[in-house]
Amino acid sequence: MTDKNVKEIEDLIKIISKLPGLGPKSAKRIVLKLINNREDLIKPLANTLAQVYKNVIRCKTCGNLKSLNSKCHCSSSAYDQICVVENIADMWVIESTGIYKGHYHILGGTLPVSDSKKDDGLLVSSLINRVKTNSIKEVILATSATIEGQTTAHYIQDILKNVEVKISKLAQGLPVGGEIEFLDDGTLFSAFKNRGPVISD
Amino acid sequence: MTDKNVKEIEDLIKIISKLPGLGPKSAKRIVLKLINNREDLIKPLANTLAQVYKNVIRCKTCGNLKSLNSKCHCSSSAYDQICVVENIADMWVIESTGIYKGHYHILGGTLPVSDSKKDDGLLVSSLINRVKTNSIKEVILATSATIEGQTTAHYIQDILKNVEVKISKLAQGLPVGGEIEFLDDGTLFSAFKNRGPVISD
Repeated sequence: MTDKNVKEIEDLIKIISKLPGLGPKSAKRIVLKLINNREDLIKPLANTLAQVYKNVIRCKTCGNLKSLNSKCHCSSSAYDQICVVENIADMWVIESTGIYKGHYHILGGTLPVSDSKKDDGLLVSSLINRVKTNSIKEVILATSATIEGQTTAHYIQDILKNVEVKISKLAQGLPVGGEIEFLDDGTLFSAFKNRGPVISD
Repeated sequence: MTDKNVKEIEDLIKIISKLPGLGPKSAKRIVLKLINNREDLIKPLANTLAQVYKNVIRCKTCGNLKSLNSKCHCSSSAYDQICVVENIADMWVIESTGIYKGHYHILGGTLPVSDSKKDDGLLVSSLINRVKTNSIKEVILATSATIEGQTTAHYIQDILKNVEVKISKLAQGLPVGGEIEFLDDGTLFSAFKNRGPVISD
């Protein structure tokens, strides 16, 4: 970016610019902060990245991240529920609410809508195994309310139809704070279709 | 953040959250992106950080960053101007405009207003040396238009008073696009004081 700069710094700015939500300007600010905190930031960040690169892998059973040399949480039998999500980000969001305490199963994406039988990349077969061998009582389908997410949910439902397990799905309807005036047709349709009785106190 | 997470990932999120402009949410998004791009992002980022940690130091002459084993740009005699700035960020901004092509001198901060003789951390003495030994013709004081910045500019001016060199200072006045109505007293005062003749085409 400037001929007065050193190559290492330019490289660092270039890589950091590629991270989500960051551009060249914010990358420069971050690099300045890093340079001014060599021991407190550069060193631990470099080391932790190296650790993650070396030690963190995806569990072949549940799709979550795990340390290379430790057992994955999914091997415990602490819970009898599995929540099926598309990706790790979705799991993190659900986790952060604290609303659900069971196991997770991270598919690693959704089915392509065009070819709903092509689950190449998705971690599906191990889900059947998990349900069968860990005496799971409920599978909660928590895929997104998008066409892809719902197609995937249907697909999982189909695959589990011969397995004895309760399958449930996140409710669809008005989001909290949603003003009727501004809701889309699909959401309104779901909200009407899934309407429930009013319970008086 | 969640008991389903691995320590390395939690550490990484924690460090990235400390970077300017980032919080836990954006740090998580960045970590997800990193994890999904092990070879393209984690590896080069870890390596580049290690390189910066090992190889990039501050030049003792001009205060800019330089590679450990290469000469600093300030050792060249390509230019006869030195632009004095507070920090590297300021230099980067000036560089990015392309308006100035000479040398830089990075002070590393400003004088504390309370004790304007205390230049402990500032790279001042080497500036005098640079001006004397490199037959510099002009020193441009480009410190901020803050009290600290202007105090520092005065101080540098004072220190160079016995050195034969032209000393200039960035102009103060209306910023481009500045509406008179919303300008502060100080800026208006400067704009009046530094008013110039209207040149007709």
